[in-house]
Amino acid sequence: MALPVSPLAPAAFPTLPPIPGVRLAVTNSGIRYKGRDDLLLAVLDEGTTVAGVLTKSLTCSAPVVMCRDSLKGGTARALVVNAGNANAFTGKAGDVTTRTTIETAAGIAGCDPLAVFTASTGVIGQPLAPDAIARSLGGLADTLANTSAVWEAAARAIMTTDTFPKGSVRTAEIGGTTVTISGFCKGSGMIAPDMATMLGFLFTDAAIPAPALQAMLSALTERTFNSLTVDGDTSTSDTVLLFATGKAGNPVVTDAADPALADFRRALEEVMRDLSHQIVRDGEGATKFVTIDVVGADSDAAAKRIALTIANSPLVKTAIAGEDANWGRIVMAVGKAGERAERDLLKISVGGTLICADGMEVPGYDEAPVAAHMKGKEIDILVDIGLGNGKATVWTCDLTHGYIDINGSYRS
Amino acid sequence: MALPVSPLAPAAFPTLPPIPGVRLAVTNSGIRYKGRDDLLLAVLDEGTTVAGVLTKSLTCSAPVVMCRDSLKGGTARALVVNAGNANAFTGKAGDVTTRTTIETAAGIAGCDPLAVFTASTGVIGQPLAPDAIARSLGGLADTLANTSAVWEAAARAIMTTDTFPKGSVRTAEIGGTTVTISGFCKGSGMIAPDMATMLGFLFTDAAIPAPALQAMLSALTERTFNSLTVDGDTSTSDTVLLFATGKAGNPVVTDAADPALADFRRALEEVMRDLSHQIVRDGEGATKFVTIDVVGADSDAAAKRIALTIANSPLVKTAIAGEDANWGRIVMAVGKAGERAERDLLKISVGGTLICADGMEVPGYDEAPVAAHMKGKEIDILVDIGLGNGKATVWTCDLTHGYIDINGSYRS
Repeated sequence: MALPVSPLAPAAFPTLPPIPGVRLAVTNSGIRYKGRDDLLLAVLDEGTTVAGVLTKSLTCSAPVVMCRDSLKGGTARALVVNAGNANAFTGKAGDVTTRTTIETAAGIAGCDPLAVFTASTGVIGQPLAPDAIARSLGGLADTLANTSAVWEAAARAIMTTDTFPKGSVRTAEIGGTTVTISGFCKGSGMIAPDMATMLGFLFTDAAIPAPALQAMLSALTERTFNSLTVDGDTSTSDTVLLFATGKAGNPVVTDAADPALADFRRALEEVMRDLSHQIVRDGEGATKFVTIDVVGADSDAAAKRIALTIANSPLVKTAIAGEDANWGRIVMAVGKAGERAERDLLKISVGGTLICADGMEVPGYDEAPVAAHMKGKEIDILVDIGLGNGKATVWTCDLTHGYIDINGSYRS
Repeated sequence: MALPVSPLAPAAFPTLPPIPGVRLAVTNSGIRYKGRDDLLLAVLDEGTTVAGVLTKSLTCSAPVVMCRDSLKGGTARALVVNAGNANAFTGKAGDVTTRTTIETAAGIAGCDPLAVFTASTGVIGQPLAPDAIARSLGGLADTLANTSAVWEAAARAIMTTDTFPKGSVRTAEIGGTTVTISGFCKGSGMIAPDMATMLGFLFTDAAIPAPALQAMLSALTERTFNSLTVDGDTSTSDTVLLFATGKAGNPVVTDAADPALADFRRALEEVMRDLSHQIVRDGEGATKFVTIDVVGADSDAAAKRIALTIANSPLVKTAIAGEDANWGRIVMAVGKAGERAERDLLKISVGGTLICADGMEVPGYDEAPVAAHMKGKEIDILVDIGLGNGKATVWTCDLTHGYIDINGSYRS
């Protein structure tokens, strides 16, 4: 079943420049999809460092468990991603499949199996033959390339029910040397047919030791990939990996907080934010891109919890779908978030118009500009808790008939 | 807009017998609805004790704040409930409206204002004139009655977008005396147009001191009204009150745990469970009544958290709406609940058929009986975490196009 491209999709996929030290190849594995690529092999030059952020799910997939182990080493030589089967809840057989995949990729890259990373996305609970992925890897070794075309093909190969491929690129300076960060990801909410959700792969030619890379990736994930929600469901497979090949030859900086890395951090955050937004724009059934800013909370963590509660409220999301300036539902969501809030201090603005303050509608409130804002594709909600300095921004989409169609109507 | 009656509604409203010591009257207040009663006054004889459970929302309504105060006294003489305007987020003006209502009702009942309880349900954030409710109460004083007809009228008067009135009755023995418990409630998820959700009023002729009444009500609420979810959103107005007039003249028992109250507790739980189930059966857009049993968790609280996470998952709910035996989504929900779980110990059964164990699908799994079960109106999901003795049962409904229609398409 081909879904129509999201109305919120960017005009075009960006041109991702080749990152020195990275070679990619894609193919069809025959596991699930026909007539499209669904398997990606990346081989990374010696000296590549790696950082990663993985799902906190307690029923996570076999690849996630193995990534968690491999990240301890801090070095990477290969990445294998397949779409269509998440290899999650596939028992000890699933572990064997992942190990076979890793050993085959290690043979191709000529590296230790601990330098191989894998991610699987798609249906969960469906058994995979031990060599289901490995048998297609041999052919890929001969087609490895580093062109903009193969980068876009890679972004497409990891899609499940995404309606468009997602990529982003930025450059930055480290000690006078220009470095590039390119990334692609997949995710469309808890993607039908199952909970594949988000995988993200970022590559840079910068030389950065793994601990500094990890510190930056973890901190920025909180403000980007961990600040979006489509339906509040948590994947068994979520994986974000950042690989640094070191080919740019920049001066090495070991402390993530060093000002010498400020521009790199800025660029990395921009790539991650851009990719995050693209996931929301491809949210299942989405017709509105919603930004929720919470300020004045007791702490940043409190602000984020309130923002996510608003973003995950089915009543807020359906009101947005219905273009209804129903701000009472935002009050409700603030009230259920469990963080401190006081009625008479709370202020809510939509599209820049202040709606309520002092515990009630502002005197002479005119709904017209808010109603006009609700008809647009980009909805901005600002909630001021009025208590402290905590703030957070979260992105989400509306909840529409399209979501029910996608998730309630078919599995395969 | 009249919604069609839920396909899960009971065949008929039960005959609620008059409870000695209770008199009821209903009317149209002119606040919001036309052509139907929307205001209920109950006057209770002297000596009536009371217990209550209120929303934990931090943005709760003015009536909730005042009920919380009045419950400290433990005695009740009047109850006023209006539907159509929740008097929530209406600022200090809303407080004045509630106080005016209470003082007027106190005048009618000839009691202290602290013995008057009020609840309001409907749109939030909409100002109410100070005498909006009080001005209609005077006329009600003359029509107070205690017949089955007025009990059903009372259940109807508190409805917002409920598609059927909800009542239940049971009898019990306390020390050889037969007592009756009658109750009615309203709730349909986070009811369109706003978060009115659930109000429940229980009446008994039993003589039971307020502290014992409160202990029983609080404990049983956890297993009944607090074990259901339609969409996970929390009302600003949720209120459950239990009034005991003492007219049955049973021997007074002061300890809620006394075996002499065992039969009363049983009957009270049955009324509360029956009413809870009726709310789920009237869930917005519901076409399936879903029972989720979780056993083998670390504790009862852990089991309930896992059960609620499954019940609130949009992906689980849309799969049920689509009659899709997509058990991978249940695994996902267990994984995100945040309570301890181990893949290889988890067992999931649907409609009595074991689907997975040992970390994967059971060998030779036949989906046919599960698929047949999913086509019914009553769906049973059993999850065995396999770790401990914690267990919980939660009820919910499916997530359908009807929910989006009701909540995304209109406010008034």
